[in-house]
Amino acid sequence: MATPPLHELGAAQAATLLARRELKAEDLVRACLDRVAARDGTIHAFVHLDADAALAQARALDAGPIRGPLHGLPLAVKDLFDTADLPTAYGSAVYAGHRPAADAASVAMCREAGAVLVGKTVTTEFAYFTPGPTANPHNPRHTPGGSSSGSAAAVADRMVPLALGTQTAGSIIRPAAYCGVVGYKPGLGRVMSAGVKSLSPTLDVVGAFGRSVADAALLGAVLTGDLRLLDDHAHGTLRIGLFPSPSWPQADADTQRAWEIATSALARHSDTCQDVAMPQNFDELIQLQKDVMTFEMARSLSHERLHHRAALSPQLVALLDAGMAISGATHQAHLQRTADWRLRIDSLFERHDVLLTPSTTGVAPEGLGATGDPLFCRSWSLLGLPAVHLPFATGAQGLPVGLQLVGRLGEDHKLLAAARRIHERLTR
Amino acid sequence: MATPPLHELGAAQAATLLARRELKAEDLVRACLDRVAARDGTIHAFVHLDADAALAQARALDAGPIRGPLHGLPLAVKDLFDTADLPTAYGSAVYAGHRPAADAASVAMCREAGAVLVGKTVTTEFAYFTPGPTANPHNPRHTPGGSSSGSAAAVADRMVPLALGTQTAGSIIRPAAYCGVVGYKPGLGRVMSAGVKSLSPTLDVVGAFGRSVADAALLGAVLTGDLRLLDDHAHGTLRIGLFPSPSWPQADADTQRAWEIATSALARHSDTCQDVAMPQNFDELIQLQKDVMTFEMARSLSHERLHHRAALSPQLVALLDAGMAISGATHQAHLQRTADWRLRIDSLFERHDVLLTPSTTGVAPEGLGATGDPLFCRSWSLLGLPAVHLPFATGAQGLPVGLQLVGRLGEDHKLLAAARRIHERLTR
Repeated sequence: MATPPLHELGAAQAATLLARRELKAEDLVRACLDRVAARDGTIHAFVHLDADAALAQARALDAGPIRGPLHGLPLAVKDLFDTADLPTAYGSAVYAGHRPAADAASVAMCREAGAVLVGKTVTTEFAYFTPGPTANPHNPRHTPGGSSSGSAAAVADRMVPLALGTQTAGSIIRPAAYCGVVGYKPGLGRVMSAGVKSLSPTLDVVGAFGRSVADAALLGAVLTGDLRLLDDHAHGTLRIGLFPSPSWPQADADTQRAWEIATSALARHSDTCQDVAMPQNFDELIQLQKDVMTFEMARSLSHERLHHRAALSPQLVALLDAGMAISGATHQAHLQRTADWRLRIDSLFERHDVLLTPSTTGVAPEGLGATGDPLFCRSWSLLGLPAVHLPFATGAQGLPVGLQLVGRLGEDHKLLAAARRIHERLTR
Repeated sequence: MATPPLHELGAAQAATLLARRELKAEDLVRACLDRVAARDGTIHAFVHLDADAALAQARALDAGPIRGPLHGLPLAVKDLFDTADLPTAYGSAVYAGHRPAADAASVAMCREAGAVLVGKTVTTEFAYFTPGPTANPHNPRHTPGGSSSGSAAAVADRMVPLALGTQTAGSIIRPAAYCGVVGYKPGLGRVMSAGVKSLSPTLDVVGAFGRSVADAALLGAVLTGDLRLLDDHAHGTLRIGLFPSPSWPQADADTQRAWEIATSALARHSDTCQDVAMPQNFDELIQLQKDVMTFEMARSLSHERLHHRAALSPQLVALLDAGMAISGATHQAHLQRTADWRLRIDSLFERHDVLLTPSTTGVAPEGLGATGDPLFCRSWSLLGLPAVHLPFATGAQGLPVGLQLVGRLGEDHKLLAAARRIHERLTR
C-alpha cells in the first residue's frame, strides 16, 4: 500500500507513528507547513503562522521523551484563543497586534500533551457573523462557515490534522459541515475556557476539529482530561433517536438527501433507529438561544462596545445595542427557561443513546460575505449538549454535507463511541 | 444633624446627592483619596492607585450629564479583574506589571454607569489562599480574610463606598464577615465574567462590597442589569429558614452568639423563622466543592503551572498538582452530582424564602499569614446560590461577626429585599 503524503496523515495514525519514533515531528510539521505554503494563498485559513517556531518545537520534541497523546502533532488554533507567542486579535481590528501574556488553558494543555502550535486561524469578528477572508477548500467561491472558519478549512485542506475551535451558536458544527470534516463540541463545562475571549458564558464551548471521529476524540480527550473518549467502540446495541427537528422545512435537498442516506444505511444494521417524540414548543429554543447570547455578548464585550464602537462591524454593533436593551430581569427569566429545558431534554436520553439531527440547512452557500445559518445548531448550543458533526455525503457542486449526532450531558464518551460506529457505517 | 465626613458617605446616599448635583464627584473622590493616603500605610488594601486619573474622571463626570446609577461613586476593584489603565497582577509575581488590553466586562459596565475607578485592591495569589499584605481595619494584627482582601478592607475602612470582588469558595462572604461589611455574591451566571482571571468556571462569581445592603445592591443592579435589585423592601411575611449547617460544631462562641442575637431578634417580628430540615448528606458538598475547584483551577492555570512553577507559592503548586491527578471522568461525575444537588436544594425554597446560615467559624483569626477558613461558604458556592453577608455583632477583641442569608437561584432580588429588612432588624 502506498504511504499517503505526510500532510494527509490523520492525527491518530500520526500519533502512533510518532510515539513509536517511526515518524519525526519535524518531518510531519514541515510537510504541513509546505502544504500551508502551497495552499493558503487560496484558502486563507491562517491569520498568523510561525514556521520557525513550529519547526524548533518539533525538533525539541524529537530530541526529548514522548510528552503525551499529542506528541509531535501539528495543531492550528482559532484566533479567539490567547497565545503567548503569537498575536491574538479575536478577528477584530481593535486587537490588531495584541500580544496576550499567557496561553489559553486549552492551548497550554495541548502543548503539555506534545502538540506543535503551527499558527492561528481566522475567526469571524469576535466569533460573531462578520467573516474573515477564509475560503472553502472544496470550492473557494463558497464560505467555509464560521466562526471557526480557518480551523475547519485548515483541517479540511490537509494543512494540519487537528485544530481548536469554539461554539456559541453553531461555530464548530457548521464550519465542520461546510468543510466536510469532523467537529466535536464537548458538553458544556467539560473544557476550561480560561484565555478564550468570553462572549456568552452560558453557551461558549471549546472544541475540536479532525478528519475522523477518532482524531477529534484524541484532541477532545486532552481538552477534557477524560480518557474514556479514546475508547474504540460503543458497546451493545445503539438506540439512535431520529430528530429532524422543527426546522426540518428549512433543510434543503442536500440535507434531505444526507438524511435519506443515513437513515437507510443505519436501518441495515442491528442498531435501532426510532423517531423521537418531538417535545412541545421545542422550536422556542432558537429564539431563546438568540436572546441569551445577545444579552451576554453585549455585556461581555462592554469594553469594546464603549471604547471601540467605530471599529466594530455594523452587524456586531446592532447585536450589542439589542443586547443592552434586554434587562437583567428578562435575562434571568431566560436562564430559568434554559434550565427547565435542559432538564426536560435530559429525559429524552432515557429512550435514546444519541440523537441524529441536521447540522446545516445544506451545503456551504456561495460567497464569502456571510458564513451561513447556525439554525440547526442553536438549540443544542443552548442545551449545552455534546455534539459531533459527521461528514459522509456530497451535495450540490461537489460540496460536502452530513449530519450531527447529539449526546446526553455528561456522556461525551458514549457520544464519541457511537459517532465512530455510525461514521464507519456511513462512509464504508 | 451633623454631616458625616464625605468619605464616610454610603454609596446610595452619595449617589442621590451626586445625581442632584448637591455633591461634586471630585470632592467625594478627593475625600476618599485623602482617607486612603491617611490609612493605607497601615491597611495595605490597595496594590495600585491612580489618584490623578481618578480625579480627572471625577471632574469629567461633574462637567457632563449624569451617566448612570453609579455616577461619581468611587469604586475599588480587586486585582483579579483586568483594567486597561491600571496594572493587573492577579496577586502573583508572574504578572507583575502586566497591562491588559481591555477592562473586564464588569469594570467597563461600572464605568459606563458612572463609577470612578480609584485603584486595584489586594487579592490573594490567583484568589487562592496565599495572602497579600492587607490587614484588618478593625485590628491590623488580624487577617481581613480573602481572597477579596483589599476590596473588603477598603470598604470597611471608609476608603471607598463600593468595591468589586469574586468568590470561588468563600472569597466575598468571608472577607465581608471579617471586615464587618456587606458582601453580595450574585447567583451563578448573573454577572458576565469576561476579563476576570478564570479559575473555576463552575464556581467563579463576580460580586460586590458595600457598607449597607442597599449599597451592595446598587452595585449589584449595575452588574446584573436587574433593576429589581433596587426595590426597597420585601413584600409580605418572610419565611426565614434557619440553617446552622452540618458544620455548626465548628462555629465558635462568637458565631454562636451572632446566631442567638439574630434568631431572638427575628422572633420578635412577624416574619416566621423555621428550622430547615437538613438534607441528608449535605456535608458531602464541602469535599465536592474542593474537588471541583481543584480540578478546574489546575487546568485553568495551565500556562502558569507549566511555565512559572517556581514563581508560584508551595500551597498553590500543591493544589495544581492535586488537580491534575483528578481525571476528567471523575470530574464529570462531580459535575453530575453538583447538578443533582442544585436541583435537590432548589426544593428547599418552596418552604423558605431565604436561609440564614453562618458566614464564618468566628471573627477574623490573628495573623496575616493565612486568610481563615471558607468552610461555611463552600456549599453555597458549589450550589451557585446568591448570598449576602450581614454584619451586625461584635465578637472577641471588638472584631465584627455576622451571618449570611442565602437565596434561591434566580431570586437575587428577593434575597436582597429580605436582606434589607433583616439587616435593619438586626442593627436597629
